[in-house]
Parts: sequence; C-alpha cells; structure tokens
Amino acid sequence: MKLATLRLQDRTAAVRVEDEALVEVGRPDVGSLLADPEGMSTAATADGPRHEPGGARFATLVTRPSKVVCVGLNYRTHIQEMGRDLPAYPTLFSKFADALIGATDDIVKPAETAELDWEVELAVVIGGRVRRATTIEAEAAIAGFTIFNDISCRDWQFRTSEWLQGKSWDSTTPVGPWLVTPDEVGGVRPALAVRCDVDGTTMQKDNTGDLLFDPVALVEYVSTMIRLNPGDIIATGTPGGVGHARRPPIYLTGGETVVTEIEGLGRLENRVVVEGR
Amino acid sequence: MKLATLRLQDRTAAVRVEDEALVEVGRPDVGSLLADPEGMSTAATADGPRHEPGGARFATLVTRPSKVVCVGLNYRTHIQEMGRDLPAYPTLFSKFADALIGATDDIVKPAETAELDWEVELAVVIGGRVRRATTIEAEAAIAGFTIFNDISCRDWQFRTSEWLQGKSWDSTTPVGPWLVTPDEVGGVRPALAVRCDVDGTTMQKDNTGDLLFDPVALVEYVSTMIRLNPGDIIATGTPGGVGHARRPPIYLTGGETVVTEIEGLGRLENRVVVEGR
Repeated sequence: MKLATLRLQDRTAAVRVEDEALVEVGRPDVGSLLADPEGMSTAATADGPRHEPGGARFATLVTRPSKVVCVGLNYRTHIQEMGRDLPAYPTLFSKFADALIGATDDIVKPAETAELDWEVELAVVIGGRVRRATTIEAEAAIAGFTIFNDISCRDWQFRTSEWLQGKSWDSTTPVGPWLVTPDEVGGVRPALAVRCDVDGTTMQKDNTGDLLFDPVALVEYVSTMIRLNPGDIIATGTPGGVGHARRPPIYLTGGETVVTEIEGLGRLENRVVVEGR
Repeated sequence: MKLATLRLQDRTAAVRVEDEALVEVGRPDVGSLLADPEGMSTAATADGPRHEPGGARFATLVTRPSKVVCVGLNYRTHIQEMGRDLPAYPTLFSKFADALIGATDDIVKPAETAELDWEVELAVVIGGRVRRATTIEAEAAIAGFTIFNDISCRDWQFRTSEWLQGKSWDSTTPVGPWLVTPDEVGGVRPALAVRCDVDGTTMQKDNTGDLLFDPVALVEYVSTMIRLNPGDIIATGTPGGVGHARRPPIYLTGGETVVTEIEGLGRLENRVVVEGR
C-alpha cells in the first residue's frame, strides 16, 4: 500500500495512492493515520473523495512528527569520501519538523549560506510506539519507507562540532511523496537503488543494501535512547556524491532542479529558489 | 507574572502562580497559553479553580514544544574547564520533547549509561513566532525564563561527534517549575545566580551574566536558521562544575537528589532513580 498527504485548497488529507486515483481515507495527514492503531487497516479499504494523480500537490508526508532523527555516515562509500573510519555506532542528529516540505515544493536557498548541498536518504516511518525495541519489535514498528533529501548548509554545519545549525533550516527538506509499506519493497531491510540528480546530472547513486546500520538496527538503537512514536521519521543517511566532498566542491546556488529518487518509492522533484527573488 | 503547568488527577492545567494559590487560567498547559496571542493578558486576570501551592505537582512547563534548542559551551568558566577556546558561534543541538519531565519528577537513570551528569541551565521560553528576528523582535519574542537541567549521558554523548544520543534520553530532563516573565528578573538579559547541588553539595555555581551569547542573541541566531514558535525552549548552556569535567569524574548513580536553582525562578528538585528497581 502507498499512502500520502495531499495538499488541498484549505486543508490536507491522507490518501491511499492508486493507479487511477488518490482516495481520501478520512484523516488530515499520514501522521494522524499512523497514530490510530486501526489506521492502516482502515486506510486499506476506506473510500472517500477521489483526486486525480496528475498535478497533485503533496504536503510533507507527516506534518507534525514528534521527532525526525537523522543518521550521518551510514553508507560505506560516503564514509570513505569524507575520509573517516567505519563507525562502531550510528552518528545521530535531528531536524525540526519546521524544516520539512513536500515532494515538489521549492527548496528555499537561505541568503545566509553559500554552501547548500544535497543528500538523498531512505527514510523509515514509524508506525507504533516503541522503546528499547527488540529486533522483532523494531521490525513491527516500521510502517514503511519514504524519500528524504537532507538538504544541508555546509558552512553552518561545520561552524561548530554539532551539525544541527547546518541541517535544520526552515522549509528546506523535502519528504515524500509516499509512505510505501514494507511488503511492496521486499521487507524492512530493503535493497533499493537510490539516486540524486541535479539538473539531469547524477550526483549520487548507490543502493540501500550498502547501509552499515539498516532500518531495523536503527529503530533498535534510537529507541534505546527515547521512545519512538507513530509518524516519527528516521532518515538513514546518505551515500557518496554530495557536493561538499567533490573537488572542487559543487553547491546549489539557485535555479537548479533536484530530483531525489528511490526505487519503488517514487521521486522528489524540487526547484531551488533563491530567497527574496 | 509566574505561570506553570499543574499536573492534576486526569489532566494538566496552566496556572498563574500567586503566593496563596495556583489559579487555573483555562488552558491545559503554558504552551497552549503562549500559542494564543491574547494568552498572557488573559492569564494575568483569569480566575478559575484554585489549588494549594503546597504539594503541587508540576508537569514539564510546555508539554509539546515544537523545538527544544540547546546551547553548548556558553559560560566562560565551563568552556575553560572543557579545555576549549571561546567560540565565534554558539554550538547548537536539540532535545526531543519526550525527554522533558516536571520540576519534581524522578530523573530515571537509564541502565545503559554509567556516566549520568547534571547541567543547570537558564532556559528562554518563546512567546511569539519569529524568523530572522532583529534585536528588538528577539527581545519581544521572549515570554520569560525557566530552569532546565540538561541531564546528559556522557558515554553516549561522546560515542560520535554529535551529542544528541547523550542528550535526549527519554524522561530525563526537568524543566520548570515556572515561566517567569522578564519584568520580574530584570529584563531579557538577566544576571541571575545559578546553582546545581547534588545531595547538598554545590557542584555548579555561576551567574547568567557570564553567558557569552545572551538570551536575545540566541533568539536572533536560532531564528536565522528556523522559525521559533510560541512555547519553544532555548536552553542557554551550562557553567563549570559538571561531573564529567571533575578529576576524578563524578556521575549520578542513583539515589541522589539533584537541586537546580536559579535566582528568582524557583528550583527543580529531582531524585535520581535507577530503572527497574
């Protein structure tokens, strides 16, 4: 099953994504659907107002996640290009929900950065509340997957040791378009091709099978520290090919189209717009 | 004016704190009060059910802040004890709302850490929505101040470069007891004595006048990156005297009483309880 959060004139609506139509399932967003223990089974059969798939505007998948946990350095290729050793533990940081945008929304380039960069990531969407999840509990807590581009301001990221201030700029991070349940992508540890293109040039290309810490391991690890709630998002880290690691580096300056694609999960397509123009 | 969030049998309630009584002001918590543009003026005069101050149980001040931004290394003394240079920029990280507890709640020591530590901090509570605040806008956006103990698991904090996993353990971080408006503490850049005692021994003692980045500067800086919403919390960093920096280090092992006090803002008093005993 595929679910999404549709942006309508005066509201948002959770929809089931079918080939022919987007069918409203009676909830304002995928987050509130997941918060209902019966939500997924209701969504599978619910019949509500239908919308044309063509031209649909998706809101960010979960409008108010209680947490967005991001993982750094989780593909072998990216760790190597950043010149680091394979880590014993996942590196975790967070984004605020106010950083999230929809699958085709503009990425607003802040005037304050000269080093805006891309990071395609597979994101895990949590379906149940868990703390100190066992492997089996972690597997069961994964509602599905979506696409996440962890847009980063490298100059701010490296101002101090803590990356947050480069990672959580307002309205910069597209998430979506859909929540795709694990059964559609080969389970809770899927091996999916991931790619990020900027103006038609492929910048990142890898496979989620290369993840050091897989989705289940990450749910176990994060939930050791803190409860995970329905709608929470874990972005699993990015592979090699970010602009900052290129010689010379390449950054987004405005006007580009960034396409972020994961096999079976659809694509994000976002224009980079310079603020105030 | 002093406001708090009282924990009652089956609900929470925002209250105005008076000498003789805690007066309900018609909102479930201080966060929802701040989200209402008329909230503060309503709270000043509202008359609702009254509760005895003695034995009151306070919930965490804002039950669902959209963000909790923490500042590292912001007192000259603490920077020096950690062996670092004075920074050009504030170091920012975050906590998840699920880490927050009330002013007299138990701090649950996770079984997974052997290095649980204290950090008294002055916290700013945001009263209006701001982005890229000017100095005047930042001053106006400060609803008031409260006390925050940024309880930290040092072993997890330093597993990787990013501190989040040592900083955001579930239900470890007391915040409260009150929101105190700036007029009661000498304005939006108050110089207040701060202290943290463990079992009656003073471990940290400083004054918020020693902050490198003051509350107004922090609101300006953080809001450059992301909007700040009513109820958001900025914890301004801790002074010298943390357990981890002592030789030999001292950690909380369970059974201690941690008292966190700031002049004019009241006190947090939390027992450290070992999980599962």
